[in-house]
Amino acid sequence: MKKIDLVEKEKQREDTGFGTTATSTSARLVNNEGNFNVKKIGQSFEARVNLYHKLITMSWAKFAVISLGFYLVVNLTFGILYYLIGIENLMGVNKDHGLSDFWEAFFFSSQTLTTVGYGRVSPVGYVTNIIASVEAFLGLLSFSILTGLLYGRFSKPIPRIRYSEKAIIAPYLDINGLMIRLANEKSNQLINVEASVIFSRNETIDGVVKRKYYGLDLERSKVKFFAMSWTLVHPITEKSVLFGETMESLQASDAEMLVTVEGTNDTFADPIYSRRSFLYNEIEFGKKFLPMTVPQEDYYLLDLNKLSDTENAKLN
Amino acid sequence: MKKIDLVEKEKQREDTGFGTTATSTSARLVNNEGNFNVKKIGQSFEARVNLYHKLITMSWAKFAVISLGFYLVVNLTFGILYYLIGIENLMGVNKDHGLSDFWEAFFFSSQTLTTVGYGRVSPVGYVTNIIASVEAFLGLLSFSILTGLLYGRFSKPIPRIRYSEKAIIAPYLDINGLMIRLANEKSNQLINVEASVIFSRNETIDGVVKRKYYGLDLERSKVKFFAMSWTLVHPITEKSVLFGETMESLQASDAEMLVTVEGTNDTFADPIYSRRSFLYNEIEFGKKFLPMTVPQEDYYLLDLNKLSDTENAKLN
Amino acid sequence: MKKIDLVEKEKQREDTGFGTTATSTSARLVNNEGNFNVKKIGQSFEARVNLYHKLITMSWAKFAVISLGFYLVVNLTFGILYYLIGIENLMGVNKDHGLSDFWEAFFFSSQTLTTVGYGRVSPVGYVTNIIASVEAFLGLLSFSILTGLLYGRFSKPIPRIRYSEKAIIAPYLDINGLMIRLANEKSNQLINVEASVIFSRNETIDGVVKRKYYGLDLERSKVKFFAMSWTLVHPITEKSVLFGETMESLQASDAEMLVTVEGTNDTFADPIYSRRSFLYNEIEFGKKFLPMTVPQEDYYLLDLNKLSDTENAKLN
Amino acid sequence: MKKIDLVEKEKQREDTGFGTTATSTSARLVNNEGNFNVKKIGQSFEARVNLYHKLITMSWAKFAVISLGFYLVVNLTFGILYYLIGIENLMGVNKDHGLSDFWEAFFFSSQTLTTVGYGRVSPVGYVTNIIASVEAFLGLLSFSILTGLLYGRFSKPIPRIRYSEKAIIAPYLDINGLMIRLANEKSNQLINVEASVIFSRNETIDGVVKRKYYGLDLERSKVKFFAMSWTLVHPITEKSVLFGETMESLQASDAEMLVTVEGTNDTFADPIYSRRSFLYNEIEFGKKFLPMTVPQEDYYLLDLNKLSDTENAKLN
Repeated sequence: MKKIDLVEKEKQREDTGFGTTATSTSARLVNNEGNFNVKKIGQSFEARVNLYHKLITMSWAKFAVISLGFYLVVNLTFGILYYLIGIENLMGVNKDHGLSDFWEAFFFSSQTLTTVGYGRVSPVGYVTNIIASVEAFLGLLSFSILTGLLYGRFSKPIPRIRYSEKAIIAPYLDINGLMIRLANEKSNQLINVEASVIFSRNETIDGVVKRKYYGLDLERSKVKFFAMSWTLVHPITEKSVLFGETMESLQASDAEMLVTVEGTNDTFADPIYSRRSFLYNEIEFGKKFLPMTVPQEDYYLLDLNKLSDTENAKLN
Repeated sequence: MKKIDLVEKEKQREDTGFGTTATSTSARLVNNEGNFNVKKIGQSFEARVNLYHKLITMSWAKFAVISLGFYLVVNLTFGILYYLIGIENLMGVNKDHGLSDFWEAFFFSSQTLTTVGYGRVSPVGYVTNIIASVEAFLGLLSFSILTGLLYGRFSKPIPRIRYSEKAIIAPYLDINGLMIRLANEKSNQLINVEASVIFSRNETIDGVVKRKYYGLDLERSKVKFFAMSWTLVHPITEKSVLFGETMESLQASDAEMLVTVEGTNDTFADPIYSRRSFLYNEIEFGKKFLPMTVPQEDYYLLDLNKLSDTENAKLN
Repeated sequence: MKKIDLVEKEKQREDTGFGTTATSTSARLVNNEGNFNVKKIGQSFEARVNLYHKLITMSWAKFAVISLGFYLVVNLTFGILYYLIGIENLMGVNKDHGLSDFWEAFFFSSQTLTTVGYGRVSPVGYVTNIIASVEAFLGLLSFSILTGLLYGRFSKPIPRIRYSEKAIIAPYLDINGLMIRLANEKSNQLINVEASVIFSRNETIDGVVKRKYYGLDLERSKVKFFAMSWTLVHPITEKSVLFGETMESLQASDAEMLVTVEGTNDTFADPIYSRRSFLYNEIEFGKKFLPMTVPQEDYYLLDLNKLSDTENAKLN
Repeated sequence: MKKIDLVEKEKQREDTGFGTTATSTSARLVNNEGNFNVKKIGQSFEARVNLYHKLITMSWAKFAVISLGFYLVVNLTFGILYYLIGIENLMGVNKDHGLSDFWEAFFFSSQTLTTVGYGRVSPVGYVTNIIASVEAFLGLLSFSILTGLLYGRFSKPIPRIRYSEKAIIAPYLDINGLMIRLANEKSNQLINVEASVIFSRNETIDGVVKRKYYGLDLERSKVKFFAMSWTLVHPITEKSVLFGETMESLQASDAEMLVTVEGTNDTFADPIYSRRSFLYNEIEFGKKFLPMTVPQEDYYLLDLNKLSDTENAKLN
């Protein structure tokens, strides 16, 4: 029955997750840090801002500036409030202490917000007391977010999977293979690590250029431990979509490879994810990787500096 | 052997999780935000209240009111206690400060609860000291719950998966298909995303109206990345439960579709869940989705406003 | 080859996790809350105490007593220290305040530990300052554990899966089945819920009484949603280990069923686990469950009080 | 087709995760605590230091020293700052209190950092106020990291899976088997526990000594509950890589076994991981394990001291 046949064939298409996106552009979908070159319009304000995500992923410098800025702005705001209500409601303010009235109010605010509360200056009168009471409450709440963010940033597991600078086409058994070498830069263990490679290129179908995506079969796509290095190998058999490709054909079709690695950090049982993209000009033909391990008496020595070291090799 | 046959057949029934619920009502089981229209009687007090769940999921406005209310009530309670024990046990209370005795006690309580402790007012005498000591202790503990909740709410991952307003019946290959389009409104990545569609309708069996549930086969039910949009496709083959359905028959049988999406947010490795229901009047025949991507030089542009854009299409 | 045969057969044994435990006792392995009746000797001190586990799982009353006790003991300890060093090193101590020297030291300690620090009493001299400085530091650290525990206890997901009081043997299709009914007492959703039933009984093999464990096949062992009730059904086919069992034979062999339920709470994406054991006297023959749902106009009403309601039914 | 054959054969190689590491050294890859004997050169500073990982996994003694050291250093730094700015900007400093100016500044710093803020000493003047304000802010932030670490360490689930001291070769059915016995030392439950055994030895291939890795098939590799003890059994069939091995041949080839156990702690739904390595001299031939359970009236008694108890047994 023809109908079912077509449906079955469609189902067997490579399951890359890009397959349903028809596009005629040749822009790189993934940059080589593994981020997607996608911009969105029509996002809601909340989705666009995505405050928590931004605060966790921004640089430490930016986070420090924002934290201090927040502290400053809150203290300025409350300082102005106390000042406007009347400095006479802050007992202990005294020109002899070398501070102007406003700055006494400002520093009183900071002592309240952080709950230090030295008490040299203290609130009297209803309004000032109410505001100080609210400020201490807000201080505790806002510091809970700030400190939560700080610890979240500090404890966030950052996978440090390093990839060889180039993907190479090397001799493999009696054929050739696409190889990419990985190493875990950190000293902690990664376990149950799984890798996948997606290959994409422009193809001209009925005169229309379309971007096509293919999953590449790996000789080994999962390892129980990732203690040393790991060389991903896609054997270029006659069935492989890479069969017959040359450096020139890869360039002509804007070829790109997307490597994804998933695993578990066994210190904290956190899942980790890592991505890396190789553009056609990051693929080399006729190379093979040199060993990274340096034999030692009592232990194994992995030299990360050799991760991308290759030598020429005659292809089959 | 007939017995085993029946058992085997029962086992092969669609595994929707509703299959064992016999019901004669035609109420919608799922509202279109994906919440179940189920009320329960006989819950224990603890299960009905489910305090933590409520505090995490209520609106920010409600949470703010409850937090401030809690702060107010605790301070009132302790303020009254200090007042009843005798204001003479609070050293530093002074009518010149423009506060009545009770409010001095109230603000002393707030300074103790937040651990600001300016010290202008401080406790003397056994009873007041004991109570102040307990209040500071309880303050630290209760603020730990309040701040934990606040940060929990702030950091809770809210999936922002948007669904097309309508499910459509569109031409698909040489047959037709049910299609629903999804997009991730946020800028962060979702990975390992899995979708399922459950179809339910009333069926008259032996003269009794029963609600029946069917899982719909999808052309693709899992994608590795959810970077762009994703159109779920259920091919309406002759085997499909939707084969032969019309707008009228769907309405007559109170038909409803439940879409569920599960995946992982790769910034925090948090699992995310999303649900959406489409009632018969949210299903359109003879449409097809228009592209959402706008080709650009250097990147991909996804226009979320076009998520529900369709045009007419002749069905096969 | 006979050797391989025996090995293969052994591999196909029911995988219950108890299978390798040879035992001649007839004690119940699991109590009906799902806890194992296992005691261990030879545990290390740390494993036996398992402080964190105890502090999270103990009752709220016990936790409150321990917290307050800890607060009291620490303040007593530091109070005694300050007193022994010399009350003259606490400035502001004054007999007029109605407190003896020791209690001034005690309350100073509590003001330091909670970081309230009113400052009416403050440390002078080296030793007292050093100790106060250490106490404030320890106070912050120990309160971090206390508040962490408190929030951990508060936010710990407690599955409230209710089980029917009895497991029943009911007519099922053209044979009979073992049935156990479950309901989620809470209002939040459980998804991807999986259940299993393990049956155990004493068997006399070569004159030795051994406890044997069998996994029971379920008509359905996984549901996508657990919105309503769920009746676990083990069809008693001729292959079933329950085939031919009677109330008397179950009692004679000290039969026991262990139900385990695993799933995900979709508010927080937390996994949940629940267990329940049914002893032979909690199994009834010739019953069937009555409906729990009460049809309503606009929603589904699940009456948890009817979870265990059965009526007599003639067995096949 | 020969090419595909070789590729297929390579794919069927044992998936141990070490298979791709060619090495000629005979160093033990895993020590018997399950840590890998791997050192890395070329790590980035951040990867090498891996601060969070170190702070969570170091001993409690070391953590205490580092915490106190941090507290001391920060107070010294700020104390010196306040002293250099001029002690006259700290109101309330008074030689009568038995502290030199510097130590007054030091203890003022500690009162600010912990937010105790007694207020006997309080800042006046702009510079001192600014610094005190920053110190209180930094204090709150740094204590958030310290207390987060402390609670993280305290609540970190430490699996206490104990392994028998030796792996034994025991009679098993009508052949022999490699057996290793495990027990959960803690009183909490482990569920869904999975085990694997990897065997490695030196093999001389074409005159080159290579380390080879093999996964060993287990009679049972997963149990639903780990309530009692669990004896891992690898049946030494004719297909087994251990078939024909003797104590001498294991020693000659530097043989080593790596046991890994994964599961879920059901109190907190935390995944747990455990590893243990057995070197050739920790493997005994012709033994069998003695029972660990002591029959009791009402419960099961597991004697952990008997975990490694064996008696001689004639091998098949």
